[in-house]
Amino acid sequence: MISEVIEKAAAAKKTAMALSVMDTKAKNAALLAVASSLLSSSKDLLEANKKDIEAAKSKGLSKALIDRLSLSEARIKDMAEGLKKVAGLKDPVGEVICKWKRPNGLRIKKVRVPLGVIAIIYEARPNVTVDAAALCLKSGNCVVLRGGSDAVNSNIFLADLISKAASSCGIPEGAVSLINSTDRKAVEDLLSLRQYIDCAIPRGGAGLIDMVVEKSRVPVIETGVGNCHAYVEASADQKMAQEVVFNAKVQRPSVCNAIETLLVDEKIAAGFLPSMIKHLKSAGVRIKGCSKTRRIDPSLEEASEEDWKTEYLDLILAVRIVTGIDEAIEHITKYGSGHSETIITGDRKKAGLFTSKLDSAAVYVNASTRFTDGGEFGFGAEIGISTQKLHARGPMGLSELTSYKYVIEGSGQIRK
Amino acid sequence: MISEVIEKAAAAKKTAMALSVMDTKAKNAALLAVASSLLSSSKDLLEANKKDIEAAKSKGLSKALIDRLSLSEARIKDMAEGLKKVAGLKDPVGEVICKWKRPNGLRIKKVRVPLGVIAIIYEARPNVTVDAAALCLKSGNCVVLRGGSDAVNSNIFLADLISKAASSCGIPEGAVSLINSTDRKAVEDLLSLRQYIDCAIPRGGAGLIDMVVEKSRVPVIETGVGNCHAYVEASADQKMAQEVVFNAKVQRPSVCNAIETLLVDEKIAAGFLPSMIKHLKSAGVRIKGCSKTRRIDPSLEEASEEDWKTEYLDLILAVRIVTGIDEAIEHITKYGSGHSETIITGDRKKAGLFTSKLDSAAVYVNASTRFTDGGEFGFGAEIGISTQKLHARGPMGLSELTSYKYVIEGSGQIRK
Repeated sequence: MISEVIEKAAAAKKTAMALSVMDTKAKNAALLAVASSLLSSSKDLLEANKKDIEAAKSKGLSKALIDRLSLSEARIKDMAEGLKKVAGLKDPVGEVICKWKRPNGLRIKKVRVPLGVIAIIYEARPNVTVDAAALCLKSGNCVVLRGGSDAVNSNIFLADLISKAASSCGIPEGAVSLINSTDRKAVEDLLSLRQYIDCAIPRGGAGLIDMVVEKSRVPVIETGVGNCHAYVEASADQKMAQEVVFNAKVQRPSVCNAIETLLVDEKIAAGFLPSMIKHLKSAGVRIKGCSKTRRIDPSLEEASEEDWKTEYLDLILAVRIVTGIDEAIEHITKYGSGHSETIITGDRKKAGLFTSKLDSAAVYVNASTRFTDGGEFGFGAEIGISTQKLHARGPMGLSELTSYKYVIEGSGQIRK
Repeated sequence: MISEVIEKAAAAKKTAMALSVMDTKAKNAALLAVASSLLSSSKDLLEANKKDIEAAKSKGLSKALIDRLSLSEARIKDMAEGLKKVAGLKDPVGEVICKWKRPNGLRIKKVRVPLGVIAIIYEARPNVTVDAAALCLKSGNCVVLRGGSDAVNSNIFLADLISKAASSCGIPEGAVSLINSTDRKAVEDLLSLRQYIDCAIPRGGAGLIDMVVEKSRVPVIETGVGNCHAYVEASADQKMAQEVVFNAKVQRPSVCNAIETLLVDEKIAAGFLPSMIKHLKSAGVRIKGCSKTRRIDPSLEEASEEDWKTEYLDLILAVRIVTGIDEAIEHITKYGSGHSETIITGDRKKAGLFTSKLDSAAVYVNASTRFTDGGEFGFGAEIGISTQKLHARGPMGLSELTSYKYVIEGSGQIRK
């Protein structure tokens, strides 16, 4: 197994230079070829996927997991559409980020280049295989994929299809590969190969991310853990606050940019919370309140210290009444994961304090946290949402999959 | 000891928010206060430094190491000048990198923010204590310093002086601290504190850097290993080539941006090399040649496979004759460390191949590699030269010590 991992990682590294200087047209043609191959092979793909689903069922996996794993004609069509969309995006490679001339005549250009070889470690969603390969390919990066073992048949089929379609358009061998081994050790091996892998991106739950950070010897971009907050400040337009909080919790509770805790200023809590709670409960939200909140609504469960730290990813919301913006900022700083926070306020000064003091990837004023997303930001696509501060933060589009180099032209300059 | 490390790292984290929103004027005043305190305390500092020098002598450390360790009135003055220079640089924090408006009316701003808490792990140069603290402070970052044990008396004195002078200007306690413990384990403890440290930057030799990369659980920016190359292409202006190669090797051989290997096109080797070798030898350079080079000059030592991989940091140069640009690129890709390379050529197409295909932080055409430096690039100062591709590459100035966050202003937008 170590040999499969080393072989594929080394092949990717060897191919990286050729892919890094690949023409945009060739990369786009490859993406479109993968899309059409996906559509024309849908029957065989569904066959491979069926094996995974049956194995998952016989292992007694949850309905939710089996749903994530399952492909359908509609989902395959979505994957193909996604590929076409990526083909339509601007190629980031070669962009001159800035340039200047030094007094000694040296002309310095900062030029965008691919990262090189990216390892993507993910769980059992076969669509990630296609998404991640497409974004890496378009940004000139070789990719070594390692998906969850429950999707292994689907993933092997998909990776093979992608490689073949891409190479028919001139993309070099080894640019897209999948570690077939489902041994957990294969991930560790992959993450130890500093000589071949430039960057690892885990996509999945907190357990997967922690494992990758713990094991990796290659630089990691952490993604996706979101303990997000909404703070309804005393001067808020309360109707707007109701709508934003409801949207941020209810519209899609299973994703990282949904809120987990609502903070409400004590000056308006008694007026605001009863109807807010009623509205949330009508959508099936289970609410846990701090002691002050439970004085307003004694029917609520009590929120514990643990609740403030929890990313429920579910229709559950913790509610705390705070004395003002300082306590709100303190709470978020203490318990948040640095993903997305929003303040609902009519006070520009308070908004400024909130956005400047909070150390999160995305800080909103009077809008739902659900907009922290590459598509919603206008990036066209995303590989994940970074919650670390090094390299990339927040939604990561194609540009975030690049590095840069300096190209310096002179006429014989030497250093004195 | 673990308690010292945790205590100082936690204090830095706690202080990070206050420092991140600190006024530029206050930060500059603090830098100037440190500079004047350095000058007025030079006698006591030299006293502390003397203890380190005596200990180093009794341990039998090399002359070069003792020189790096030693302070003098002149070196203290240089440190003070460095602080004044950093005070004069533009504050990167708060810069709006870009902004745009979405069709739904959301206004998105990408704003530069400090990284947070930076750990700097370095060797026995006391001036790094001052440099690193100054750059971190100016860029709004708290810093936890861990210098080499041989400089511990100097470093404790300096860190204390910096803290006091800075806090007299309103810089919060804990913003600059030094791990006093000289136990190696303290470094490992520091590098395990993901909850407090946002980024670690090693400054020193390959051994130190490898140790930090190996041990760290916090994101690392690798700096400084430079196996740099010059390639004299067939169409080169040979006089220019002589000057550039000589400068890149001889002007300061102990630094990472000096060249270690010279590649020469076989078409011009017989004409070019004899005078080049003579010129280099006149400056005391020891030359190791490939078999083709030794056919031109049989007096040379033979270069081994190991030589192509070696960063001599000394007046030693490996020379190889190549069949053309493809072999030159292949050699550099195989053996280089991705730092700095230069081609001397009169052929624009060859120059383009060299700069686009080579995956190094800085790629030069007709100039010395010695310009890979924050000062020479016009950044005003540098914390190091990154040889990794994530986050920052090449010379790292103040901007490279920052991250960004998205600040999004709306009017009640919710996601459909």
